[in-house]
Amino acid sequence: MITETQYVRFDSLSLDSGATLEPVDVAYETYGELNAERSNAILILHAFTGDAHAAGISRKTGKPGWWDNMIGPGKAFDTEKYFVVCSNVLGGCMGTTGPSSTNPKTGKPYAMDFPVITIADMVRLQRMVVDHLGIERLLAVAGGSMGAMQALQWAVDYPERVAAAIPIAGTWRHSAQQIAFNEVGRQAIMADPDWRGGDYYGTQGPARGLAVARMIGHITYMSDESMREKFGRRLREKEKFGFDFDIDFEVESYLRYRGTQFVGRFDANSYLYITKAMDYFDITNGSGSLAAALEKTQSRFLLISFTSDWLYPSYQSQEIVNALRGRNKDVAYCELSSNYGHDAFLVDVGEQTEVVRGFLASTYRMIGGK
Amino acid sequence: MITETQYVRFDSLSLDSGATLEPVDVAYETYGELNAERSNAILILHAFTGDAHAAGISRKTGKPGWWDNMIGPGKAFDTEKYFVVCSNVLGGCMGTTGPSSTNPKTGKPYAMDFPVITIADMVRLQRMVVDHLGIERLLAVAGGSMGAMQALQWAVDYPERVAAAIPIAGTWRHSAQQIAFNEVGRQAIMADPDWRGGDYYGTQGPARGLAVARMIGHITYMSDESMREKFGRRLREKEKFGFDFDIDFEVESYLRYRGTQFVGRFDANSYLYITKAMDYFDITNGSGSLAAALEKTQSRFLLISFTSDWLYPSYQSQEIVNALRGRNKDVAYCELSSNYGHDAFLVDVGEQTEVVRGFLASTYRMIGGK
Repeated sequence: MITETQYVRFDSLSLDSGATLEPVDVAYETYGELNAERSNAILILHAFTGDAHAAGISRKTGKPGWWDNMIGPGKAFDTEKYFVVCSNVLGGCMGTTGPSSTNPKTGKPYAMDFPVITIADMVRLQRMVVDHLGIERLLAVAGGSMGAMQALQWAVDYPERVAAAIPIAGTWRHSAQQIAFNEVGRQAIMADPDWRGGDYYGTQGPARGLAVARMIGHITYMSDESMREKFGRRLREKEKFGFDFDIDFEVESYLRYRGTQFVGRFDANSYLYITKAMDYFDITNGSGSLAAALEKTQSRFLLISFTSDWLYPSYQSQEIVNALRGRNKDVAYCELSSNYGHDAFLVDVGEQTEVVRGFLASTYRMIGGK
Repeated sequence: MITETQYVRFDSLSLDSGATLEPVDVAYETYGELNAERSNAILILHAFTGDAHAAGISRKTGKPGWWDNMIGPGKAFDTEKYFVVCSNVLGGCMGTTGPSSTNPKTGKPYAMDFPVITIADMVRLQRMVVDHLGIERLLAVAGGSMGAMQALQWAVDYPERVAAAIPIAGTWRHSAQQIAFNEVGRQAIMADPDWRGGDYYGTQGPARGLAVARMIGHITYMSDESMREKFGRRLREKEKFGFDFDIDFEVESYLRYRGTQFVGRFDANSYLYITKAMDYFDITNGSGSLAAALEKTQSRFLLISFTSDWLYPSYQSQEIVNALRGRNKDVAYCELSSNYGHDAFLVDVGEQTEVVRGFLASTYRMIGGK
């Protein structure tokens, strides 16, 4: 499956902060065919550093999509049956308008003049994409991590436009610990003198700060077990300790590599804006009443969490499940056993595939599809 | 109890790396009185950023010791009964020779010319302090976190000189995840241009990098629960989101404060050297056979871990306990219930006090004390 990113421009987008963005570009990809009834569309919502290229092989880069193991012919999101859409989030740096985009008022990148955005803002823009594609009601919205936050926001903000929501490895509000990890990443970036108050475009940018931020992220995405299995205390190309501050352990080598690699593909200011949107995320809008927030949802729900995920622990999904059950909503929940930590939704997809496949099929039958 | 730090100088110390340090100064404090039989001495081993001032009020700074809730008259380490000693570790920056000390060969701070050290090196130096104090056999060695590593090392390296070892919230070897968190902290420091390859003495130093490293540390010392209880999603002196990158949440304010505060009291190069010593720590010397490593110990053991400690999880203590039991050693183990995460051994000391008190009393009786 060779895929191509498409683009659409909207004149304006109103934001939760009160600001307005004009215009807004969105990068998106689609896989499979929209049926005549327009009833088989699924919107995939990507995590923090994802992009619109969710599946297939990109014609431009030759690289597979970030959820290619879940989306495609015969896979969980079966493109022979469903029409699958994925767009890059607002504030991103992969084709959708974000802080690295040109500010039409100045002709230069927005940088820190970009308005602070929320998960609800991202979802509002996605709704415009769905409108643009002529889809009245989505069969499903689905995503892991920050994608789960968007799925929940969709179900709450546009209840009549979603038949099913699949939040995976997510939460209904960012916890103090989740905010703390994001804040340290932001501080690492902003502490780098090459960040220059955000005005680093055209220079090398805060490569060291961004790499440190990414290294922290990678630790939180894995589990103690998966790190032990993958690295243990193995040394890197040496038989004994170097007694210096070069790389001794494989795990050090891996983190430095992932940190450096990330710098080449991600914009540091997008890191700031997107983590801030996650930290602001609270589906109750600060009221604390999850049941009240979920009252107006009309969709079915499938929630999935993973046993070794300590960044978005199962209890956060279970609180959503309990609140939905308390309001007599149609909700299924699976806690899947995995050693892969938060990364499980991306890499350990065997059971997840079965669970999602069955849930989508029954939803599709319920709304009259075949 | 007003306390005063004392100092002792040794001509030379041989290190695991093959290097020799000449001379070596050690800062230490003592509390209580050594009895005539010299049988009531307890060596307290401090964690990463601790110092010799473990208890009482410092005459110099007016501040209480870092384990003042555990050490003193009538406390777990009862100074009316026992003679308690605590010294600053090798590589530290609180009076014992470390990278910020003057290199006699150059007349300037060692900086990165300081040799890489190990936990065993720290313990070797402590043994010299114990010799200096005329103590043949310690009633107990005790410490949490990195202190637990030293306690274990003592029991293995000097079996005949320790009646009891109390490793709390520790491990027998640093795991990939523990190495990873330390490595990110080091990278944050070394990425700061003000680190200057370690030659920052007399300049402002890598304040931003060190603050970021400390922020990461603080997250790992707390638990998800304790952060939720302490901060939740409470905003800092505002009623709604700022929609900017100033402080929104209490937890952000706390982390920034702790990061900045740390810079004033700790040397960045000591951060590098001491974390490296922890990462090198493996009581089996890479053989992987814990039972064989513990074979020659002669002491009793009390191990303590805490339910919510995810940085040094209980299973790591339990592996030590199982290996000791397998060799028919005298070992007691308590997993204490606490929400405080790794910090529990410092702040949630109610049950810990009872357990330690009883274990010390029975050990003291066993060796003929009263």
